[in-house]
Amino acid sequence: MYYGTDYYPEHWPRERWELDARLMREAGINLVRLAEFAWAQLEPAEDAYEFGWLDEAIALLSRHGIATVLGTPTATPPAWLCQRYPEVMRWDRDGRRVTFGMRRQYCPTSPTYREHTRRIVAAMAERYRGNTNVIAWQLDNEFGCHDSTRCYCPACQAAFQAWARERYGSLEALNDAWGAAFWSHVYTSWRQIPLPWSTAGVSNPCLELDFWRFASQQTVDYAQIQVDVLRSLCPNQMITTNLMGLGFRDIDYYDLTQPLDLVSWDNYPIYQGEREPAAAALSHALMRGYKQRPFWVMEQQAGPSGWQTMSRAPKPGQLRLWAYQGIAHGADAIVYFRWRTCPFNTEEYWHGILDHDGRPRRRYEEIRQMGQEIARFGERLVGTSSPKRVAILFSYNDSFAFRLQPNVAGFDYGRLLSDYYRALHDLNVPVDIVSPDAELGGYALVVAPTLHVLHADWADKLKDYVAGGGYLAVGARSGVKDLSNRVVQMPLPGLLAELCGIEVWEYDPLGREGTGGIRFEPRIAPIGGAECLVSMWCDILKPTSAEVVARYTSDYYAGEPAITQNAWGKGRAVYVGVIGDGALYEALARWWLNETGVQPLLSAPPQVEAVLRQGQDASYLFVLNHGAEHETVRLPYRGEDLVTQRLYEGEITLAPRQVLVLAVQGAQD
Amino acid sequence: MYYGTDYYPEHWPRERWELDARLMREAGINLVRLAEFAWAQLEPAEDAYEFGWLDEAIALLSRHGIATVLGTPTATPPAWLCQRYPEVMRWDRDGRRVTFGMRRQYCPTSPTYREHTRRIVAAMAERYRGNTNVIAWQLDNEFGCHDSTRCYCPACQAAFQAWARERYGSLEALNDAWGAAFWSHVYTSWRQIPLPWSTAGVSNPCLELDFWRFASQQTVDYAQIQVDVLRSLCPNQMITTNLMGLGFRDIDYYDLTQPLDLVSWDNYPIYQGEREPAAAALSHALMRGYKQRPFWVMEQQAGPSGWQTMSRAPKPGQLRLWAYQGIAHGADAIVYFRWRTCPFNTEEYWHGILDHDGRPRRRYEEIRQMGQEIARFGERLVGTSSPKRVAILFSYNDSFAFRLQPNVAGFDYGRLLSDYYRALHDLNVPVDIVSPDAELGGYALVVAPTLHVLHADWADKLKDYVAGGGYLAVGARSGVKDLSNRVVQMPLPGLLAELCGIEVWEYDPLGREGTGGIRFEPRIAPIGGAECLVSMWCDILKPTSAEVVARYTSDYYAGEPAITQNAWGKGRAVYVGVIGDGALYEALARWWLNETGVQPLLSAPPQVEAVLRQGQDASYLFVLNHGAEHETVRLPYRGEDLVTQRLYEGEITLAPRQVLVLAVQGAQD
Amino acid sequence: MYYGTDYYPEHWPRERWELDARLMREAGINLVRLAEFAWAQLEPAEDAYEFGWLDEAIALLSRHGIATVLGTPTATPPAWLCQRYPEVMRWDRDGRRVTFGMRRQYCPTSPTYREHTRRIVAAMAERYRGNTNVIAWQLDNEFGCHDSTRCYCPACQAAFQAWARERYGSLEALNDAWGAAFWSHVYTSWRQIPLPWSTAGVSNPCLELDFWRFASQQTVDYAQIQVDVLRSLCPNQMITTNLMGLGFRDIDYYDLTQPLDLVSWDNYPIYQGEREPAAAALSHALMRGYKQRPFWVMEQQAGPSGWQTMSRAPKPGQLRLWAYQGIAHGADAIVYFRWRTCPFNTEEYWHGILDHDGRPRRRYEEIRQMGQEIARFGERLVGTSSPKRVAILFSYNDSFAFRLQPNVAGFDYGRLLSDYYRALHDLNVPVDIVSPDAELGGYALVVAPTLHVLHADWADKLKDYVAGGGYLAVGARSGVKDLSNRVVQMPLPGLLAELCGIEVWEYDPLGREGTGGIRFEPRIAPIGGAECLVSMWCDILKPTSAEVVARYTSDYYAGEPAITQNAWGKGRAVYVGVIGDGALYEALARWWLNETGVQPLLSAPPQVEAVLRQGQDASYLFVLNHGAEHETVRLPYRGEDLVTQRLYEGEITLAPRQVLVLAVQGAQD
Repeated sequence: MYYGTDYYPEHWPRERWELDARLMREAGINLVRLAEFAWAQLEPAEDAYEFGWLDEAIALLSRHGIATVLGTPTATPPAWLCQRYPEVMRWDRDGRRVTFGMRRQYCPTSPTYREHTRRIVAAMAERYRGNTNVIAWQLDNEFGCHDSTRCYCPACQAAFQAWARERYGSLEALNDAWGAAFWSHVYTSWRQIPLPWSTAGVSNPCLELDFWRFASQQTVDYAQIQVDVLRSLCPNQMITTNLMGLGFRDIDYYDLTQPLDLVSWDNYPIYQGEREPAAAALSHALMRGYKQRPFWVMEQQAGPSGWQTMSRAPKPGQLRLWAYQGIAHGADAIVYFRWRTCPFNTEEYWHGILDHDGRPRRRYEEIRQMGQEIARFGERLVGTSSPKRVAILFSYNDSFAFRLQPNVAGFDYGRLLSDYYRALHDLNVPVDIVSPDAELGGYALVVAPTLHVLHADWADKLKDYVAGGGYLAVGARSGVKDLSNRVVQMPLPGLLAELCGIEVWEYDPLGREGTGGIRFEPRIAPIGGAECLVSMWCDILKPTSAEVVARYTSDYYAGEPAITQNAWGKGRAVYVGVIGDGALYEALARWWLNETGVQPLLSAPPQVEAVLRQGQDASYLFVLNHGAEHETVRLPYRGEDLVTQRLYEGEITLAPRQVLVLAVQGAQD
Repeated sequence: MYYGTDYYPEHWPRERWELDARLMREAGINLVRLAEFAWAQLEPAEDAYEFGWLDEAIALLSRHGIATVLGTPTATPPAWLCQRYPEVMRWDRDGRRVTFGMRRQYCPTSPTYREHTRRIVAAMAERYRGNTNVIAWQLDNEFGCHDSTRCYCPACQAAFQAWARERYGSLEALNDAWGAAFWSHVYTSWRQIPLPWSTAGVSNPCLELDFWRFASQQTVDYAQIQVDVLRSLCPNQMITTNLMGLGFRDIDYYDLTQPLDLVSWDNYPIYQGEREPAAAALSHALMRGYKQRPFWVMEQQAGPSGWQTMSRAPKPGQLRLWAYQGIAHGADAIVYFRWRTCPFNTEEYWHGILDHDGRPRRRYEEIRQMGQEIARFGERLVGTSSPKRVAILFSYNDSFAFRLQPNVAGFDYGRLLSDYYRALHDLNVPVDIVSPDAELGGYALVVAPTLHVLHADWADKLKDYVAGGGYLAVGARSGVKDLSNRVVQMPLPGLLAELCGIEVWEYDPLGREGTGGIRFEPRIAPIGGAECLVSMWCDILKPTSAEVVARYTSDYYAGEPAITQNAWGKGRAVYVGVIGDGALYEALARWWLNETGVQPLLSAPPQVEAVLRQGQDASYLFVLNHGAEHETVRLPYRGEDLVTQRLYEGEITLAPRQVLVLAVQGAQD
Repeated sequence: MYYGTDYYPEHWPRERWELDARLMREAGINLVRLAEFAWAQLEPAEDAYEFGWLDEAIALLSRHGIATVLGTPTATPPAWLCQRYPEVMRWDRDGRRVTFGMRRQYCPTSPTYREHTRRIVAAMAERYRGNTNVIAWQLDNEFGCHDSTRCYCPACQAAFQAWARERYGSLEALNDAWGAAFWSHVYTSWRQIPLPWSTAGVSNPCLELDFWRFASQQTVDYAQIQVDVLRSLCPNQMITTNLMGLGFRDIDYYDLTQPLDLVSWDNYPIYQGEREPAAAALSHALMRGYKQRPFWVMEQQAGPSGWQTMSRAPKPGQLRLWAYQGIAHGADAIVYFRWRTCPFNTEEYWHGILDHDGRPRRRYEEIRQMGQEIARFGERLVGTSSPKRVAILFSYNDSFAFRLQPNVAGFDYGRLLSDYYRALHDLNVPVDIVSPDAELGGYALVVAPTLHVLHADWADKLKDYVAGGGYLAVGARSGVKDLSNRVVQMPLPGLLAELCGIEVWEYDPLGREGTGGIRFEPRIAPIGGAECLVSMWCDILKPTSAEVVARYTSDYYAGEPAITQNAWGKGRAVYVGVIGDGALYEALARWWLNETGVQPLLSAPPQVEAVLRQGQDASYLFVLNHGAEHETVRLPYRGEDLVTQRLYEGEITLAPRQVLVLAVQGAQD
């Protein structure tokens, strides 16, 4: 298993490199990522390359048994390039050209920038294609970070006009798709099509959803340029790019990762406030879902983090715990960001394993401890898979559409997704996050928190899934929009109405301020009679063939159906007409487990997380105590803890932040 | 009585129109507003008009007994126009040209835009001047909406310089009026005069008040261009424009409505949070006051509303209740916005009578019920008048001046007006809102919440009103400013000091955070001895001839006069030196009713509103239960309810959201 | 002693001047400041000067015994100048040229503006160099106010590039200092160096600290231009400029005041909310520290103040109390802003001694009372000094650096300084605020709340101070940065680690949300065993030679050292590893007084402030009751109150807002 760190030899005197490599080796580190921001060092002046320092760094690290992932440095075009070719700079939504001084200042559409990209990537590829110490390439760095996905420059306007022409063929079709009949928005020339600059006010959501798709695609196309160069020159090296977690959703990662060998991402559990364990778990699951296989963590938080202000310090045990959580959820490599804290420029407070003074202290010791463990048993985990039981559907169309129109004040798509995920996660049920395009056949339960912008193909596919015996739950605001972000002109939930056996008769958009209540029908085991708060949204349902599962207890629609279940072929489809608080999702999860027979891995207190990875010969049950207290759990089967090499069974007690990695034979999927 | 809806045939296939018209007719609808955003459909390319579809729609609706109000489509210049004539686009305060994508993107000053306006309005007028199904014209749509009143383009700068030259004649006069002696602001050329762009920082309130007046006048002049075209071509059709309620105060509506036949406005009681009944009542009263006669509601909320986020759903009975409230306060027509919810573009969530799928559901049924009632008795109400008892004075000068300088943190002129209005409204006293220019003779009580920017003519007029036996109440911060927004150089309240018999010796600007108290003198019936909280402002008064009505109970001015009353001729003038909370205004209202003998229409619980319309032969007492509970009231006289055709007298119980329209003979004015 | 007011004869008709002068004289006023915004009146058109009105005003005032300070009017370039020379206008951080309409619209770097400055200053200097009624010059007005220090125009970019070249000599040195190895920020041409426009995003703190220094220096250089003109032409008149208090820290006032004769500043205790007495005291101490001698208050609040909104009214006694507080802390002159409230333009609500109507009321009377007192005994106080006991170190480098990178959310350098100052002030201990460059020899206690950006010379100097027997306290985040705003590559607190006898082993950045606790070791008198809350920051200390003073009581570092004391030569160095709440600083202050033997002037209730000024023959103990209640104190020695001419000793009672100025013989330093 790769156990690594992000290293910047260009920041330190050459005399220091040897000590760094030795300290790394002693910590069990066998991988570094190099050079992803080093364009200025690799090409100090146009067409004048300097690879010597990087050759030397790779070789020196290699002598300590440390392999290299090379980053293409395109996130940071150097000053000379930005000065000479100002057209490569991005424009912000206010129509202002971004100036030099941070990173990601480039427009991914710019033909000039694409040309320079081909040049620098090809130069690096030529240099390192034959270097066996270089095992993989990382494209650029955190595409889209710092709000850099959507550029509003003249080149982008022209490209968007061309993209629209390609998509719609005729202005008639475009005007129809964009509802241009409204407010005299009819376009009579492709040249009239604007970008949604801030000076346009609240923009047309049909146009703007297309602009977000276009912008996402510009980065995907831009990445493909790099992929093409690398594939042709370096056929034996893997290609990845480092993604960001659920909080970033400006680029369709299904598209972006399609041509890659490997998904990797950057995990900072306490960058802006400490997050609950389910938050990182969800992002791990999301990453696992992009290519439906294990992934890497390319940046794992190693200390207090932040730009002008820092987060709290990770508490003893957390750095190791977080890394094991990643492995439990499918990470085949952990790479800590960064080796040594940078003493200058923007990221002075983004702490690495070593402090600014380069001395090993508490954080180094903790990572070294884990490095020894990984060296011992990490390889057994690589390539093992996560059990396929429950799938939650995630869609970029919906994410984009709800950002443009939240429907009600305070609604957030990511929050809704998290609420559903957390309820299942906290019951220690394995959950995958997948695209509606994914194969759903193997899942006992499929949850669509919402399918707002609904592809007709998806509706058909879900019908097939249910007809074949699947159990589907669909949430409020599903089936509302067509692919053009227009509201469908049929009873809601539109193309899912028949499958769900209901019609949304009316809705009450509660929003952040509103509250209401529902009660589950008495017969609904194990939650019959339970009452839950609702907020944000109430659909008042009219069953056409569904049975009522829960009814409203408040307002003028008290007694009306809020949640229903409909038999369809061999399966069932649930419609959840409400958006609520945590207790609602916990009740739903308990009900669904009861209905589908899906078993939790473990019954455990809230701070204890149980996760399974399944291999050919053995499975590995991770039991992680995220809390600051001792916690007791009863193991369902016995297993040998790879960490302590002790055998555990029955009731056991976990110390604060303790990690068990139990090799178990008896675990059934 | 007209009972209508805003209809957009251009959004729907022609095959649907017939069904829409039939559903409308069945709901009692006899009026539609058409075409106010349809420039792109009426003139798809420059000088190429297409009126066929509109001819057809008008004719088809007419066959169902439905008349038409035609909107001029100038709120939405089409893409071809904005592309070809970029100089028509408005500039925002940051000096950025607005881009295409919303509506109201035009500069009302632009000579080019004025020319295109004349052209499209004339073309429509020529086409429909003889069409008897077209009964009226609506100019543009919600002038000033989306912060579009004030444009900061070069044409506006030049026009403002010319306007200033016209107003002041000489730079000497201008420099004097604007206090240019301060901070070397002396202008030595008209060309130096800036607009108050955001880049100028906090601007000179004297200059800026003039700029706000100028900007208001630009829209008034722009509207006049349309009026002139329509008057000359369509002498038999009425002209209106749809105003917005109290919340919008960027254009002087007294000026704007002066050349119109009819005031109409757009009423959304729960667009951003549900408002108390007094809020809509105040806006209705404001509208009634612009031309001092009945008005229309041109857009009446028909469902959940909002752009990216929606409001709550109106509860059963509210759509009807709100419409009757409008009629009670003087509406002679109700037009619901909109017929069917738009499935695309910016207003997807602005719900109409029908949902996106075009099917009638709960909201349609409620509106249909009311339609049947209106058909039966609506005509009896048309043209009846509102009783003239109490007037509240409202001034755009003050509204502008307080927006520029709130005086204390948190002060809002609209809020002050609302506080005074609500106190009287909630006692079921009929209140008019009128300009200080209005004839006040008939009113038993005139309340000026403040007359901050005080016209010398107004001071004289108020003296005459009081001298003649009137009862005037004047609030804090009156008489502070001259018409140039300079503070007067005389003791406050300036030109009103003699009338009020006091001098403001000192003031303590409490602001949002400060609080204090007053106590009414024991002799003041019926509120003697009552204590009230004050906030925002305390004037410390020195009576010259007035008697003391209330004194402070807190701070270093405890015991000093806060409210006074002064005999003047046959009448009296009250000075209210404080701004307070609701209880203060309720106490004042009770005192003034006692002093003036004005009687409430009804004594009723808070959620029950009573409003009177007076006709030649009968009067109509509206009793509206806005609450969700049953409420009991005692009627002062018996009457026949036009809704149920039952006779009511004595103590009666109103169901939640019940409406009584009692035809009464005995009601005295 | 000068007792004055800011007077604007150019705002009033000449007929009024005589009355104003008489009222001034009757109030004891013997000084006015004139003309600092009157460029438009002094030079109505380019090169056409009009000094007649000013000659006349100075002469008229002089006839009433009133001397003049003349302001150079460069804060307000007139409209004709801004129109003809648009290049003089400042650009904001968004890269927008500021427009005409406020003040301080100029770029201090602009060569054109510097030329016009020389011209107008020279013209005034020529005119008044021989006028003995003119005793001093004020340069410009509140340099840097309205966020005007940092200009982002092309001239500033070029000047910054030149400044950087001058500072670093080579691009290699600059790239090293700015950490340009990071994110490919390497500059290969001076022309590439950007300004930190908002379009650059979060900028490089190394570059940006230099830009802030550059911008501060531009104003210092600009002021020097004026100084040079005045020095050469008016050798007998003093030069000052009016500074702002602690809240403004964009210009290094140590640099700015260096060439001046006199420090003066503008004191508004309730401009935005009333502040505690310690707040004004701190600013007074800051001003006294710039040149380490008495200062003037050039603008002393005279009434409710504010631009669009006003503050509360000063309560009876406060205007006088605040003025005496200034004198107590070292003011040798008090000048009230302003004589009469301006009835027009931006400052209509910035109240003067007289109201808009020019009549004397309560505020005039209070100032007149004090004027009589000052006339009687003011001269005895002039030039007396403040006792040298405790110094707090204040550094612009730190202020700039923390504004750019607060380290943790919510941290504010000014707040930290205030917290330390208040603790000592509230114990009535005399405190100086001085630069780390100041001579520290005479102080019994030196407190550095932090020395974040640490000059190596300062570290050496502090070692010497302690070695010589001094007592030094150093706070958290000291020694973290070098002068380039890079984090030092040595154990913290860097160059102070040896002196403090500790190493910061680790830190936990609590931020605004976090809290923790410490407990003082039992042996630490008089606070042994006391527990204090901490917030914002926790350093976990590893003593190398220091003894532990307090330990943490919470989190994983409970029991670890938080505060230490280290013997060094003849003295001791304390390291305070935490940032906390008020109780922490009070505890520290009590401990330090105990350790150093520094005595409070008086033991008094919280609202009573005691301050000492020491003269040749007598000392003056000011006892100020800021509260609204009577308060009792016991005087340590007897003295004659200059106000009442009564003798006080032992236990005495102070009325609300009473001021005692006790001439005492026995007070020891």
